Amino acid sequence: MTITILGNNSALPAYDRHPTAQIVTVDSEVLLIDCGEGTQMQMQLYGQKWRKLNHIFISHLHGDHYFGLPGLINSMSLLGRTQPLNLYAPIALKSIIEQMMLAADSQLNYLLHFHPLNVGEATLLVENKAFSVKSFPVEHRIDCHGFLIEEKSHGLKLLPEKCREYQIPAYFYQRIKDGEDYERNDGFTVKSEWVTTPALPGKKYAYTADTRYTESFLPHIIHSDLLYHESTYLDAEAEKAAQRFHSTSKQAALIAKAAGVKKLLLGHFSSKYKDLQPFQEEATEIFSNVYVTKEGESYEI
Amino acid sequence: MTITILGNNSALPAYDRHPTAQIVTVDSEVLLIDCGEGTQMQMQLYGQKWRKLNHIFISHLHGDHYFGLPGLINSMSLLGRTQPLNLYAPIALKSIIEQMMLAADSQLNYLLHFHPLNVGEATLLVENKAFSVKSFPVEHRIDCHGFLIEEKSHGLKLLPEKCREYQIPAYFYQRIKDGEDYERNDGFTVKSEWVTTPALPGKKYAYTADTRYTESFLPHIIHSDLLYHESTYLDAEAEKAAQRFHSTSKQAALIAKAAGVKKLLLGHFSSKYKDLQPFQEEATEIFSNVYVTKEGESYEI
Repeated sequence: MTITILGNNSALPAYDRHPTAQIVTVDSEVLLIDCGEGTQMQMQLYGQKWRKLNHIFISHLHGDHYFGLPGLINSMSLLGRTQPLNLYAPIALKSIIEQMMLAADSQLNYLLHFHPLNVGEATLLVENKAFSVKSFPVEHRIDCHGFLIEEKSHGLKLLPEKCREYQIPAYFYQRIKDGEDYERNDGFTVKSEWVTTPALPGKKYAYTADTRYTESFLPHIIHSDLLYHESTYLDAEAEKAAQRFHSTSKQAALIAKAAGVKKLLLGHFSSKYKDLQPFQEEATEIFSNVYVTKEGESYEI
Repeated sequence: MTITILGNNSALPAYDRHPTAQIVTVDSEVLLIDCGEGTQMQMQLYGQKWRKLNHIFISHLHGDHYFGLPGLINSMSLLGRTQPLNLYAPIALKSIIEQMMLAADSQLNYLLHFHPLNVGEATLLVENKAFSVKSFPVEHRIDCHGFLIEEKSHGLKLLPEKCREYQIPAYFYQRIKDGEDYERNDGFTVKSEWVTTPALPGKKYAYTADTRYTESFLPHIIHSDLLYHESTYLDAEAEKAAQRFHSTSKQAALIAKAAGVKKLLLGHFSSKYKDLQPFQEEATEIFSNVYVTKEGESYEI
């Protein structure tokens, strides 16, 4: 699972930092989380392919999180997209997009499935063999949702030498991995757990979107491998952060620590800060495995 | 009068070319014509100051001409704008913007005056001492408007030596320029036309927005100093251009010639063309003073 940052600035683009957007690649799929202005250009710039993009998640309807969406949706249609696209967002966005299409007297060349996010509730949005995506409520000035992406664990892992030792034919390997025992011709039953090890748990990535400091969503993000928590302000502006329903880097670190995550990514920096090093320093006092994200960079779990 | 190109690509951003937007500086004011996605970033990049921007003109509601507007409007508010902004656009845009503000539970910190453009009619949009702006209908798949910006001529121009010769006192100079005759103490009347020359006519800039080839708007753009005419396609794609209500570079040149303009700027190039040199070549066969515009460049009248 890889997270690629296309934009991590808050509200206003500045210092060549673009508004929020990130790509998560999981299994062979591409997911887009938030879509600030310029995201389609950022996708081009950083070689992100829209053909594998089937799910777009918009956390809330402040413009810096979705003003790039109309352009991206449009461009994919012009570039020949025919496969359906799933869009998960607060309900008001549906009408905005419909009005834009109407004003342009245009239709998309593919089906756009709009899935409204439930206000104040955690919701399962995507579930398939490879991964699931859930939304969970966070605390912002308007209805806002974080997202949890969880890879499914891959069943049992085969031990080839053991399989040979117990003379299990190759055609039965998948059934062994699915947990079935093998009955040999001589009547001897080979138990699946003798020739397998438990699969590694699937990777978990949690994205908090915009939120003030709160432990309310801790249960949803507990033990994530990677957590992206907004840190709009430094500690000196903690009061402003609280008023504006944002967080500081210290607060992001406190959440990372309380949730027992492995690694913390910081983003959504206010344009008032040119140098982002202090974010790293303030967070590290509380949680050591922390990175100040940089546009264009990828973080692999 | 200066025209600065912020973006001149059609429909899709490509090859580092951004969708349509241009700044016209006239008198000490800044006008923005069209506002494709990324325009606020382009304004930052090319040092264009929004504090002098009081008028934004949107030609039509295909997204590549206005998807950057919500972000720009928003950012100016966040950056402290308090002076009113005038927005001239097709009526459907008003509701789209209102819905976005509602969804964000936001208000701008300045007044946004929305002036709907009249469908199928030429309209005087701005008139002041220094310049005027008119919209005129063009022929596109949806309601679309070109714009004509006309500097006012600066009254009469004084001839200082003649004024001294006729012994006109300095305090009377402005009145002479305003066309008043001067009555000397000795009873002799000095006629204003003896000591002035007619002012130079004000400069005229015409922008066609998106249009197929048509002479219907010629009367509005006649004798412009500078004409920006879309040339989405090369001559080989003339049929596609007609179907899609666009123009070729040759057609742009024909219009420039028929309108007797001084200089032609070409823009709104389809993303299918990487090399734009052929646009220059094809247009030059018909009209010699032609430039293929380049993002970031300014053209002075």
